[in-house]
Amino acid sequence: MSGNIFGKLFRVTSFGESHGPAVGCVIDGCPPGLALCEADIDAELARRRPSGHAASTTRREADAAEILSGVFEGKTLGTPIAIIIRNTGHHSGDYAELAGLYRPGHADWTWEAKYGIRDARGGGRSSGRETAARAAAGAVAKRLLSQYNISVSSRVVSIGGETEESAINALFERLRAQGDSAGGVVECIISGLPAGLGEPVFEKIGARMGSAVLSIGGCKGIEFGSGFGAASLRGSKNNDAPLRPPAAPDRPSFGSNNAGGMLGGISNGMDLLFRAAFKPTPSISAEQETVGKNGAGQRLVIKGRHDLCIVPRVLPVVEAMAALVCADLLLEHLAIDNGKRLI
Amino acid sequence: MSGNIFGKLFRVTSFGESHGPAVGCVIDGCPPGLALCEADIDAELARRRPSGHAASTTRREADAAEILSGVFEGKTLGTPIAIIIRNTGHHSGDYAELAGLYRPGHADWTWEAKYGIRDARGGGRSSGRETAARAAAGAVAKRLLSQYNISVSSRVVSIGGETEESAINALFERLRAQGDSAGGVVECIISGLPAGLGEPVFEKIGARMGSAVLSIGGCKGIEFGSGFGAASLRGSKNNDAPLRPPAAPDRPSFGSNNAGGMLGGISNGMDLLFRAAFKPTPSISAEQETVGKNGAGQRLVIKGRHDLCIVPRVLPVVEAMAALVCADLLLEHLAIDNGKRLI
Amino acid sequence: MSGNIFGKLFRVTSFGESHGPAVGCVIDGCPPGLALCEADIDAELARRRPSGHAASTTRREADAAEILSGVFEGKTLGTPIAIIIRNTGHHSGDYAELAGLYRPGHADWTWEAKYGIRDARGGGRSSGRETAARAAAGAVAKRLLSQYNISVSSRVVSIGGETEESAINALFERLRAQGDSAGGVVECIISGLPAGLGEPVFEKIGARMGSAVLSIGGCKGIEFGSGFGAASLRGSKNNDAPLRPPAAPDRPSFGSNNAGGMLGGISNGMDLLFRAAFKPTPSISAEQETVGKNGAGQRLVIKGRHDLCIVPRVLPVVEAMAALVCADLLLEHLAIDNGKRLI
Amino acid sequence: MSGNIFGKLFRVTSFGESHGPAVGCVIDGCPPGLALCEADIDAELARRRPSGHAASTTRREADAAEILSGVFEGKTLGTPIAIIIRNTGHHSGDYAELAGLYRPGHADWTWEAKYGIRDARGGGRSSGRETAARAAAGAVAKRLLSQYNISVSSRVVSIGGETEESAINALFERLRAQGDSAGGVVECIISGLPAGLGEPVFEKIGARMGSAVLSIGGCKGIEFGSGFGAASLRGSKNNDAPLRPPAAPDRPSFGSNNAGGMLGGISNGMDLLFRAAFKPTPSISAEQETVGKNGAGQRLVIKGRHDLCIVPRVLPVVEAMAALVCADLLLEHLAIDNGKRLI
Repeated sequence: MSGNIFGKLFRVTSFGESHGPAVGCVIDGCPPGLALCEADIDAELARRRPSGHAASTTRREADAAEILSGVFEGKTLGTPIAIIIRNTGHHSGDYAELAGLYRPGHADWTWEAKYGIRDARGGGRSSGRETAARAAAGAVAKRLLSQYNISVSSRVVSIGGETEESAINALFERLRAQGDSAGGVVECIISGLPAGLGEPVFEKIGARMGSAVLSIGGCKGIEFGSGFGAASLRGSKNNDAPLRPPAAPDRPSFGSNNAGGMLGGISNGMDLLFRAAFKPTPSISAEQETVGKNGAGQRLVIKGRHDLCIVPRVLPVVEAMAALVCADLLLEHLAIDNGKRLI
Repeated sequence: MSGNIFGKLFRVTSFGESHGPAVGCVIDGCPPGLALCEADIDAELARRRPSGHAASTTRREADAAEILSGVFEGKTLGTPIAIIIRNTGHHSGDYAELAGLYRPGHADWTWEAKYGIRDARGGGRSSGRETAARAAAGAVAKRLLSQYNISVSSRVVSIGGETEESAINALFERLRAQGDSAGGVVECIISGLPAGLGEPVFEKIGARMGSAVLSIGGCKGIEFGSGFGAASLRGSKNNDAPLRPPAAPDRPSFGSNNAGGMLGGISNGMDLLFRAAFKPTPSISAEQETVGKNGAGQRLVIKGRHDLCIVPRVLPVVEAMAALVCADLLLEHLAIDNGKRLI
Repeated sequence: MSGNIFGKLFRVTSFGESHGPAVGCVIDGCPPGLALCEADIDAELARRRPSGHAASTTRREADAAEILSGVFEGKTLGTPIAIIIRNTGHHSGDYAELAGLYRPGHADWTWEAKYGIRDARGGGRSSGRETAARAAAGAVAKRLLSQYNISVSSRVVSIGGETEESAINALFERLRAQGDSAGGVVECIISGLPAGLGEPVFEKIGARMGSAVLSIGGCKGIEFGSGFGAASLRGSKNNDAPLRPPAAPDRPSFGSNNAGGMLGGISNGMDLLFRAAFKPTPSISAEQETVGKNGAGQRLVIKGRHDLCIVPRVLPVVEAMAALVCADLLLEHLAIDNGKRLI
Repeated sequence: MSGNIFGKLFRVTSFGESHGPAVGCVIDGCPPGLALCEADIDAELARRRPSGHAASTTRREADAAEILSGVFEGKTLGTPIAIIIRNTGHHSGDYAELAGLYRPGHADWTWEAKYGIRDARGGGRSSGRETAARAAAGAVAKRLLSQYNISVSSRVVSIGGETEESAINALFERLRAQGDSAGGVVECIISGLPAGLGEPVFEKIGARMGSAVLSIGGCKGIEFGSGFGAASLRGSKNNDAPLRPPAAPDRPSFGSNNAGGMLGGISNGMDLLFRAAFKPTPSISAEQETVGKNGAGQRLVIKGRHDLCIVPRVLPVVEAMAALVCADLLLEHLAIDNGKRLI
């Protein structure tokens, strides 16, 4: 189906290989009249840059967005917003010797199985570089959501099983020494989301959010509210008791949020809350065994600069995908609601 | 967006309220020439009937599919396959007193927030009854997959935290006595899936599968391969080592399956494996506190017959959604592959 | 892509072969709270029945819609509206001898080229019978549009080149005597359409309407406003002069309607107007030459009852497709407009 | 719905305003391994440049495509192909005085009705400039089609009612002197199209082609084969007689092509043939009456350089849209056909 377009009404088309001229996106369906400038996008791009994190590669990616269309005199026109981010500073030479074999944990083999051809200068389209386009699109979605007082935030829950910052830093020291890497868990919270978003039955808010977050490279799981823990709970404990807060007599609130902000696939006015698990970076500098395209077993040492853990840098990407889903579901709900019932 | 259509090329439109005349589906895009009859569908419907499970409601649902179109002399025509399943044996009276309040853990309030109207005779569209249409559509997808030697199976991993059958049965005794319910975890395996399915970057196989399974009522999480456990592993442990089996010298196999059968969002030729968490049935017979539409707090005792745990009955539904995703991705891959590279 | 689903937000899935158990449709995305009953649908079905027209087959089709879902106590729920219309009174025997050859002007050969299988009892899915589902869906769309004071009407412009009723009736006499058939032109007008509908650039209102109407069997052309005539006009004549009517000082009207109610693919507040050309019914009783599947030339006399001209019966179908497009574009516009600018 | 994405499997996202930094497109779903370079695209861009035609504006548009992604070492990767074309040489000053009024025949008013904001430096997104992105995408589609020996060509049928070249040139002289403009008719032929393309019932090949061509700015009608003429023909004349050519004993040919290459919405192996009508350029230099945003009537003389007739320049755009439809339907058919039946 050609899987580089995301969304139904707020639609993002993403493009770009890691070692090609640029990555970027086109946003079709952003409402007109929204204040937007390149600095809004650059701020999100900066959050996923490697330099700021102890866990990250030392590559420098001086990402700067160029808006090619859809914005006039600082406001969106309602037309497609095209954004490009030039690739700079990549060293294709680092990858030359990897073209003849399959790196463990990478998409080298599956990409060849699917397309019969790949850009072996780097991950190409399967590189984490692709997430810059997501962050850019997410910046626009966040601007739209902010008009409705909806905010998206995230935090690291754990890295390599550690939850304390000092333990995490010590872990990074060990990983660097051992040439290894770690995974982690991210939590994301969307606040201010009105009740009523989500389109049962197949486009439930959890289904849409799950699809969005599981499409991020390295994501291996997602759970909402009490999540996998709910599987061990009794109904009497997991049900959130409806309450009637004095300030809003016409709608219930809830005494807990095991539901993660959704009932029957529709937002219930509480915070939308999910956690996502990311696998360890597959590129490690310790020696590994693999096979080459010629069929022979072979020992591999990956050189170059790689993240010890992608989790710190993935936060803005998770938020971006969450924001895109919320923007899309918001517009979809308006279509049947005609502005009357949004609460 | 109107969320009752699933899929891109193998598209399923689902319809039906729990207490209306019928539920059903229309499958658009099923290839022609596939052997199909009503018994194929009834077999899957029987698996989700309540009668066979200790955990289930005592309602009898004598589900029988009627194929209205798309099949001629026992073969699919390539035209839409419409299937209806009449609703029988429902007792609307059981629900009459519930229309004025919001049942904890149910979609009553969110449904009103979204639509401003609901069929209060039962769950309506948010009832588990809706999954009969999924099972019917899944039966057709399974027939298609079987032509490619792809099979889908599932099992109960745990219920209420218990993994042994005797402990689970003992748990059901206690739940029945206490008027409570339990959640659980399901595991699903797709075998025989060729490498190359999945459409990066937004339509990765995990994203599509996640969306499908998270759209099932009560599903609160999904994980692939090592899943949330991967977040605590080192890269050196989580990477699956590529091997070259003698029998297939032109393609790698893998020494483990932490990836759950996918790399870079594309199937890698190993079993596709995921686990899904389901929350406890929200309808419990023990007394609960809630609020009514009139704003007043209220004590609630839900009568009628309800599942102690939906997990045993949800197995064919999970399989159905998995089969629909695989059928769809298979057709999508054929579109760019033209039958040449499928391996 | 599986082409039996129409629309983006107001989505119709159509199904059914002419000689199978039923035809019907599922409407996903109809807003909640709309008054709807089976009589609304039957009224449109009656308009496309053959009995009322001199040009029509003498087959009787006693079409009665059954609503299976989506309506509760006379109002739409916002859930999918499934409608089935049982097929009655067909005589498969009439078609038995046609299965071995290709009828001129019919889809017999192309259907086999595409699917390798077909229901030779009649046109199957390519029969005009399929349009009953369109008329049913159109009835629902018209109900929605009526809430916005939008109305859809149509008329016969010409049949076999004749525009006067008496000449048309005389033509029908001759066609019946000669065993021949005629085509014709239909005009459709949508009144009350607010300015602002249509989604540039690829989903212009004319593009969407064109796709809808050209999808009706036998339609060979469509033109908007001055249409093909515009190709011979000067710009100074074809431009509609903007005027400022006293009653609506905040928006222009136009001194003429060569544009057919649209500018730049967006409705301009004038009547939307188009004409569609339909080919003569391919089934004629006069002898024709064709080839059989065995490769041999063969003379063919089609028996059975067929329309001399489909144009009178196609009026409700054209209106239905026009109504579906307008309903869909209305909802799409609301998504970005949030009810503020609709004028 | 955000209407800037075209297609189902071969999907084109278009962007760009006439007076912004660039126009361009992203093609998602192009199969891998196709030879492609910027010169392929520039060749199509050159065909729509104004300089070569007597009917055209004297603006110079030195269009050069830059491919940002999706191509590696001269071959497509199967990933999104992003193409940008910088805007150069526009003179915004020419448009300054037009911002306060509604130009007759233009989308100024409808754009404001829809979006409440517009880029008044020129047509913005509703400018013909947008078609450069279509031509670029069409160049890629043509490369794909050429692998299947499918070719797309077009010609001018008439301009301002004239069909002879000398009469057309004389007409241009008069139009230039009078400050007026003319419309015209284009014919397009697709040769080599295999039988079996098109997805009944709503995605018939004529419906898809109609949508594509009617989405081009200024297009007011389309007809296939005998088209509007079919409405005056008898069935006995309009039916194309199936023949069995000696060279292809397993498939019929046809003795005429009134059907325009399609039966039942599916290609029949004959040339696909359609004609499209384009209105006269609305920008004329002769004085016109209109109204301003302030409500007052006003006389208008449009300065600047405008085409006397867009028809000569629209040929590559019509071909591009036709090629996009054929590429898309080809891939869609492969999905159900698995390469077995394409004939």
